[in-house]
Amino acid sequence: MDTISLTGKELAATLNSETAERAAALAERGAAPRLVLVVANDDPASGWYVKSLQRAAGKLGIDCDTVDLGATATADAIRSELRGLCADIAVDAVMLQTPLPERVALPDVSSAIVAAKDVDGVSPHSLGLLATGLPGFPPATSEAVVELAKHHDIPLAGRHVAVVGRSNVVGKPLAQLLLAENATVTVCHSRTTDLPAVTAAADIVVAAAGRAGLITGDHVREGAIVIDVGTNEGPDGKIVGDVDAASVQGKAGALSPVPGGVGPVTTALLMRHVVRAAEASRA
Amino acid sequence: MDTISLTGKELAATLNSETAERAAALAERGAAPRLVLVVANDDPASGWYVKSLQRAAGKLGIDCDTVDLGATATADAIRSELRGLCADIAVDAVMLQTPLPERVALPDVSSAIVAAKDVDGVSPHSLGLLATGLPGFPPATSEAVVELAKHHDIPLAGRHVAVVGRSNVVGKPLAQLLLAENATVTVCHSRTTDLPAVTAAADIVVAAAGRAGLITGDHVREGAIVIDVGTNEGPDGKIVGDVDAASVQGKAGALSPVPGGVGPVTTALLMRHVVRAAEASRA
Repeated sequence: MDTISLTGKELAATLNSETAERAAALAERGAAPRLVLVVANDDPASGWYVKSLQRAAGKLGIDCDTVDLGATATADAIRSELRGLCADIAVDAVMLQTPLPERVALPDVSSAIVAAKDVDGVSPHSLGLLATGLPGFPPATSEAVVELAKHHDIPLAGRHVAVVGRSNVVGKPLAQLLLAENATVTVCHSRTTDLPAVTAAADIVVAAAGRAGLITGDHVREGAIVIDVGTNEGPDGKIVGDVDAASVQGKAGALSPVPGGVGPVTTALLMRHVVRAAEASRA
Repeated sequence: MDTISLTGKELAATLNSETAERAAALAERGAAPRLVLVVANDDPASGWYVKSLQRAAGKLGIDCDTVDLGATATADAIRSELRGLCADIAVDAVMLQTPLPERVALPDVSSAIVAAKDVDGVSPHSLGLLATGLPGFPPATSEAVVELAKHHDIPLAGRHVAVVGRSNVVGKPLAQLLLAENATVTVCHSRTTDLPAVTAAADIVVAAAGRAGLITGDHVREGAIVIDVGTNEGPDGKIVGDVDAASVQGKAGALSPVPGGVGPVTTALLMRHVVRAAEASRA
């Protein structure tokens, strides 16, 4: 069968167009929305991502500053910086980049980001709001999976979705969002027995394990939808997904490309969250 | 095959014995642990449960008071009461009973319970701590499912567990606990397509839907483990589970009884949480 490409560029453009309008309206009222990125690593991939966020923000009329605490920052220093930014009324949104320094765990420091500015939904409080259905920002990557499916008219209610990966930033919050959409959700991971059998039972497979090429044609049943959240560095330095696209082509009913699938939608949703946070703080 | 009965009474007795010792040690230091139950309904089942908690606490040397706000209490009144109790250093633990008055949603009011006193883990903050693996109290019923399985030497790592029910108090937090035990977890619910096929693919089925007799032999594969979280009122007023026990007997490898399975373990874990909260506040 022909495997449809679930591109994210069109949806990202639509979202960005609305975000730019809302950012302009805020700027007209005297204050453009302002995002601060907090970095505590010297990881090249993180540096690349920070630059791409700055570019995206700039195009949309969102001010974007970066605070670099260095790769040896302590948990206390990171928490203190995050608290200061959250107390600053000139800052609408705060994002903490990963990786973090050794011995610093994300939930330990992310709890210093107040929910109203936690535009990537990483703090325990934001995740609790998500779990209970209260208003808050869901992690943008998880939300991007759901929005990409909706954009391509892929129904979720009553469908069986296998999420491969149980991270706090993608797999687990995505399970919450999918349950809220009335999907039946299976969360698989490195300890899952017979992964191909589990994923092949699903109507939709979301690959979010962070392992290049993990999901092959053997993991996917004929006609299933495959959404690839992976962003791994390939052998030639290019970004590759968690799905072995060549192996899945012709068997899956649809596959989201990497790059150009979930990625641009994630960035667009993050920027929409920034504008929402700014609107709420000025309301 | 013979279906083993996964009774909870022995485990509950072991837990209670330790809790009583710890409560006595606290009392010797001048202050017995104190739990306050907040009620805002006139539901007979809730009344029965409150009495059973009071009895359990009394036997273990835990002071247990009840505050009855009436079935027409507003969300503001409930939040205000919870905040007052959380600010009271003489109160170690706070539990809000359900059902709540119409138009009052649990997450809206439970957020007024601070995590340190939230011994049934219902607040968004407690659920976020659970999702991210930070210290906090998990909802006792979810924890009881995991502890009951461990007590009966049922391995969870690498096993496929189907959780039927996606409530904020059982199904969703249980999924988090099971993932932390390295199980593969499928969450099913009222919108799941072909529930029997989904549950029959699992090694372990946990019934937490709140519907008497929902899970029958057709939902369970030969030899599977079935854990029944249901506590529904049967036609003759007796408590019945979500599992049609007669239909599952002889097919399942093991089944937890209702009453006498998850229930006593849940109460024992709640009381252990109360003692832990008291110990932490005096540390």
